[in-house]
Order: sequence, then structure tokens, then C-alpha cells
Amino acid sequence: MDPLRDPAEMDRRDPLTRFRDRFELPEGLIYLGGHSLGPLPRTTRDRAEGLIGREWGTDLVVAWNRSDWLELPERIGARIAPLVGAGADEVIAADSVSLNLFKLLGALMLRARGRRVVLADEGNFPTDLYMAQGLVRLLEESGATLQLTAPEDFESALDSDVAVATVSHVDFRTGRRRDPRALTAAARASGVPLVWDLSHSAGAVALRLKEAGVEYAVGCGYKYLNGGPGAPGFLYVAREFQDSLESPLTGWMGHAGPFDFDTSYRPAPGMRRFLTGTPPILSLAALEDGLRTFEGVNMAEFRGKSEALGDLFLRLAAERLAEFGVVPASPADAGERGAQVSLRHAEGYALIQALSARGVVGDFRGPDLMRFGLAPLYVRYADVWTAVEALRLILVNGEHREARFRRPKRVP
Amino acid sequence: MDPLRDPAEMDRRDPLTRFRDRFELPEGLIYLGGHSLGPLPRTTRDRAEGLIGREWGTDLVVAWNRSDWLELPERIGARIAPLVGAGADEVIAADSVSLNLFKLLGALMLRARGRRVVLADEGNFPTDLYMAQGLVRLLEESGATLQLTAPEDFESALDSDVAVATVSHVDFRTGRRRDPRALTAAARASGVPLVWDLSHSAGAVALRLKEAGVEYAVGCGYKYLNGGPGAPGFLYVAREFQDSLESPLTGWMGHAGPFDFDTSYRPAPGMRRFLTGTPPILSLAALEDGLRTFEGVNMAEFRGKSEALGDLFLRLAAERLAEFGVVPASPADAGERGAQVSLRHAEGYALIQALSARGVVGDFRGPDLMRFGLAPLYVRYADVWTAVEALRLILVNGEHREARFRRPKRVP
Repeated sequence: MDPLRDPAEMDRRDPLTRFRDRFELPEGLIYLGGHSLGPLPRTTRDRAEGLIGREWGTDLVVAWNRSDWLELPERIGARIAPLVGAGADEVIAADSVSLNLFKLLGALMLRARGRRVVLADEGNFPTDLYMAQGLVRLLEESGATLQLTAPEDFESALDSDVAVATVSHVDFRTGRRRDPRALTAAARASGVPLVWDLSHSAGAVALRLKEAGVEYAVGCGYKYLNGGPGAPGFLYVAREFQDSLESPLTGWMGHAGPFDFDTSYRPAPGMRRFLTGTPPILSLAALEDGLRTFEGVNMAEFRGKSEALGDLFLRLAAERLAEFGVVPASPADAGERGAQVSLRHAEGYALIQALSARGVVGDFRGPDLMRFGLAPLYVRYADVWTAVEALRLILVNGEHREARFRRPKRVP
Repeated sequence: MDPLRDPAEMDRRDPLTRFRDRFELPEGLIYLGGHSLGPLPRTTRDRAEGLIGREWGTDLVVAWNRSDWLELPERIGARIAPLVGAGADEVIAADSVSLNLFKLLGALMLRARGRRVVLADEGNFPTDLYMAQGLVRLLEESGATLQLTAPEDFESALDSDVAVATVSHVDFRTGRRRDPRALTAAARASGVPLVWDLSHSAGAVALRLKEAGVEYAVGCGYKYLNGGPGAPGFLYVAREFQDSLESPLTGWMGHAGPFDFDTSYRPAPGMRRFLTGTPPILSLAALEDGLRTFEGVNMAEFRGKSEALGDLFLRLAAERLAEFGVVPASPADAGERGAQVSLRHAEGYALIQALSARGVVGDFRGPDLMRFGLAPLYVRYADVWTAVEALRLILVNGEHREARFRRPKRVP
């Protein structure tokens, strides 16, 4: 059977179909925005109501113990672990991607001997570069510098001056995916600890961090993990490196005995040392519920659907959109791609607006990128088909040239 | 009228009585735990339901614009401003107290010339000391060191070696309050920028930061601001210093053009430069609702009640508890006190447990401190009377010696 011909049949055969019911998706909407903000899981409202009304409202301060709020960061970590191929004690939820990256880069710089270069890939999401800039400024007197390279030059820049390097697993613009095993091995051969940013891959493609030898990573809670707007991020550190690593953001929640009220910091054993201040419990609880949408998922089926959705999207786009000047920006080979497919078109901004008016949500990144997140838990083959067909109809009819779809001066 | 004789009459005359209805307080409970976790405001459930169901669930990624999520940090700052005596554009909500302190100490260290000492008061909440330790470690090569002093030696330690200093406005153990005007002036005379931690005073006592000449401060959202468990904290920077200060935690939300996706960081003008990664929207929204409980409060009445509640508590304790060995740990003079009253007793842990069994919530901090938060918006004079009387009855009857109130090995 060719899915180009019968996507509905593909959906009927899809073993992940039942997971879609775990989300409250607006009727009739095709949501391909999970690379930016995951949709609302069906259990999150009740969880928030219980947390606010019963735990906070009734138990008040006692809830910290009675509802195990202090354990949320680890409980969430244990739920992320199987999605990224890590041990339950190797992942913890905390703060944001930005701050978590600062902790790991900072800890690794503090431990580095002689080497003073922080190496980053310009394909990283910009906040990663900004955090590295801030860190290097603090470490200026020790000779620290930041070196940015084009994505294609990153591997060859891993030399003996580099103290620590950071790279995104999936490029937020093109959806291009790097090979964690090969790049980690290359970094290790140059003596460079490498910190992966999994923001655009965790929960979207099957990851095998341990198996690939990945040592350090950070990731995002509000995209494919469905944790809600601004949900806390996470950190991964391979077990054998945890206790030798000291975060420079030493808050009381990362102390070995936070309620001893010592005047001196002593890092907690394991991943808790990467916690900082008191965490936002409402947002953490929503993230825990976001992760419950993955309960019982078979990761092989997950990987299969993730690849198949992208393949279908790109094949349909080649067949139906190429004639209008729509060009793929993502790799054709599923093995080199995340769960996001990007297309280029000079009128991309207006096209995304016109798509939205037709009930298909993607997003736009300048100058000409249209991005579509194909999250395997709730995106159907038929959705991909409908989205591409909607784009074709818009181009045929010139709908995107309507004044209401014109780009305003400043798009936030 | 002597409130010792007729607290109910005091409550009838209290102009802040109506504010108590803004909270969902469990029937019959006397909640003196606001110094640890503020109670649930009546509007927060609906706000959370609307944010989760409508904004996130229905609008999805579009809600970032449609619901002005990006403006939440500033909107919340503008609500905190009148409570601390600051301009609306001098306060912003972000991250946690710990991280906000790191930003200010870091920014001030980066700007300091020659001086390399970070001075902190041992009376600070420990996480403040830990964050300073982490910062100093990053700045080690530049000669940075951390100097801790006893609270009473803090002012005399403000010398020409000190690059930046930090102190708590209200001591979390004793409730003792420092004078922001005098201490800021003393620090300025020694050329030392001073960062205040307002965690135990913002929303509990009337503050006049501008008038007192305070330049830098951080504070907590989940105590007296009623923002919910782990609510984000806030920063205050006097207008004239904002644009010369560069945070070392340079996340994309603090960038002048976060959606320009530049590879280089440029700080946003004003307070936005102190934002880091994507903020936790659920927790921020709850904080905004927590602050709505202060709408229309008269700060002179607020200050008056804050002082009167503490005076009443300490007078009753002196009259009724002294004979049982209960000793005040807080200053008798309301002008030297926050809204928290602490008492010492060797069996303090068991007493707090026995009080809780009688429906009065305070908390315990080792070795012998019983803490009671007297938040003017929802604590009644009659509550203070009942709390002290309950403590007296417990001591008379020896209730606290029951096995169930014994201290476990480890108290979180």
C-alpha cells in the first residue's frame, strides 16, 4: 500500500492511533506545532485542579511532604529517561534549557585543565549561544573564549584547545539530525566533553543516549514532552560523570542537606546537584502529566511512525508543491532528520498564515522557513496529507496574497 | 481598647478584614505559615483552568501572542512595585530568588574594578550563600572570594575590598528586620553596591525601596505574595542602574530581539535583560493572581496591621507562655521586625506538631525555633489570640509529649 494514495488506511493500521485520545485537540484543527508547544494532555486540567485545590489549597505547606513535591524533579526525570534511552537516575527536570546548559558548560569549564575554548555550533538555538557567551564573560580572567562554527565545520573544530562543546541534536531550522554516537566519539577522541541539546528531539524521535555513549545533555519540556507553556527543562548526565561534576549554580535544592541550613554548599549526590532554587511546582506537575502521554508507548513503533510521517510529508511536498517553488529544507533521508519537516518559500510567512486560516498550524522562521512538527503521538497520516493539500490549494488560489496574511513589521 | 482583652473587636475594626475573603482558607484552620507558602487566592483556580483549557488547550502556540504570555514578567513586576515602593518599570518576575541573586551579584562583580570580595551575612537564607559560593568559584581566577560575617558584623565589614554585598531584609529565623535606608547609605559610603533579599518581607511589611535609596533587590513569589508553591521570584533594580548592568545569565528572553535569532547576545533595555530562558507560564500566571489579592490595599493600613499583629502575638506570649520557658526570638519593637514572629523552646518541634493537631499552622526550624507568619491580608487578631492560647493549653496539658509529636530522625 502506498501511503500517498491512502493515508486513512495508514492511520487505521497505525499502532499509535490510540495515543491521540490522550490529548485535547481542538475539533478540526491539524496541529503541526508540537516543535514549539505541545498540545494539552487530557489529564492535565484535573491534575492542576487537584494540585491547586487540594494540595496547595487544603494541605498548604504540609503538601511539600504529603504530595512529595520535592521528588517531582526526579520522578519526571525517570519518565523522560526511557524516551531518551537513559537510566532513570540519569535525568532530572529543572529550570530551563538555557539555565541547564549553563550548569553543564560551567561545571565542565571548572573541571577543564588548561583548555579554555567553549565551542558551539551556530545551528544551535540562539539561547544556547547566549548562555555560553555569559559564561565565558564570567570566566574571562581565566582566558575563556567562545568559538562559533558553522554546523558543517563543528566536528573539525574539536581540537585540543576546546574545553567543552555544545551542539543541537536536531537543528531547529531545518530539522537536520546529527548522529550522537559518531560525534560523541569524535569529541571524546579529542578529549572534549560534548553537551547535546535535545530540545527538538526528545519525545519526537527515539533516542538511545546510553547506547550511543552520550555523556551530557539538556532538553526542553514544553515542545514534544507536552509539559505546557514554558515547562521546565531537563538535564542528562551519564551516571559515571555525575558525582565529579559541580554545577556553578548552587542553589539550596541541589544541596546534600537542604534542610540542614548549613552556611556552606555541599552538592547532593547524583542528579539532584543540578537543582537550584525552589522549583515551580504547578509547571512541574503539568510536565509530569505531559509525560504520562507516553505511558506504554513502544519505542520501535514510535521511531517507525516518526520517520514515516516525515517521509510522507516530503514525498507529498515534492509531488504537489515543487511546481510552486516550495523547496524542502529538511533531509530526504529519515535517518538524518528529526520529527520536524521544514520547507522553504519566499512567501513562507503568508503561506503559514493562510494555512492557519484553513485550520492547519505550522510556524514560520525568517527568512523563508515553514516548519511543521510531526509528533508521532497525535499527528495522523491523514493530517499530513491534508496539510500538504491545503498548502497546494492556497498556492493554486493565491490565497496567501490576501492583505490579512501580510507580514507585520515585527513578528514576535 | 486593649486587643489582649478583645481581639474580636479589633477584627471588627480592621479595615483589611474584607481582604481575607480573597483566599480559600480551610474552614477552622488558623494559618500562620505564609512566611513559607502563602494560601490559595480565590481566583487562582479559575485562572489556571482558563489558562490551561482555553489559552493553552484551544489557542495552542498562538496564545503566546493572543494572551500576552511574553508580557507576564513585566505585568507581575508592575503589581509587585507598589508593595515594595518601586516604579512599575523597576521590578520584573523571573526564575527563582537563588538565580536572581546570582544575576545581580554576577553583574555587579563583572562591573567591579579591583575589588574582589563578595560579602554576605550569615543570617541570609542559606541558598543566597550557596549561590554566592558558586559565583565566586567561576570568578576564582580573577581573585574573587566570599566573605561571610555574623549579622552584627556585617556593616563594619563593608570596606574598600568589597565588590558587592548581600543581606536579607528580614532574617528568616528571628524575623529581625534591617533598616534599608541606613544600611544602603553605609554601603554606598564604602562604594559597595548592596543587594537586598526581600523574600521574608515583600508582601508582609510595607517597603519603600526608592525612598530608602535601595539600588538592588531580589524577592520571593511563593511566600507573602501568594503565588503558589515554587512561584517565580522577582528582581528590583533602580531605574538609573538598569542599563549599565549586564546579567551573566544571558538567555534569549533577555535579548533585545529574542525573535531576531541573532548569534550574538544584546541585552534588552530595562528589566527584561534579567530574564533567561522561556518562563514557566502556569506558575507565572498563578503568581499574577496571587498579587491580585493586594488590589486596593492601603499600604499605611497594611503597615499598621502588620505591626499590631506582631505586637499582640509577643505581648500574649510574654503574658501566657513565659512561665513554660517559651522565649521570644523576635524583636519586641515592631520597627525592627518583619511580619514573622519567632519563639524559642527546647521542645519547639513537638509544640509545632501539637499546634498543627489543634488546627494552628506554624513551622519549626532547628534547633528550637517556632515561626509564625502574620500576613495582614488574611490573619485575624482573633487568630493570634487563639494560636497563643492553643500553645498555652498544649504546654499546660503536656500534649506535645505524646509520641505522635516526637521528632523523626530527619525532617525535610
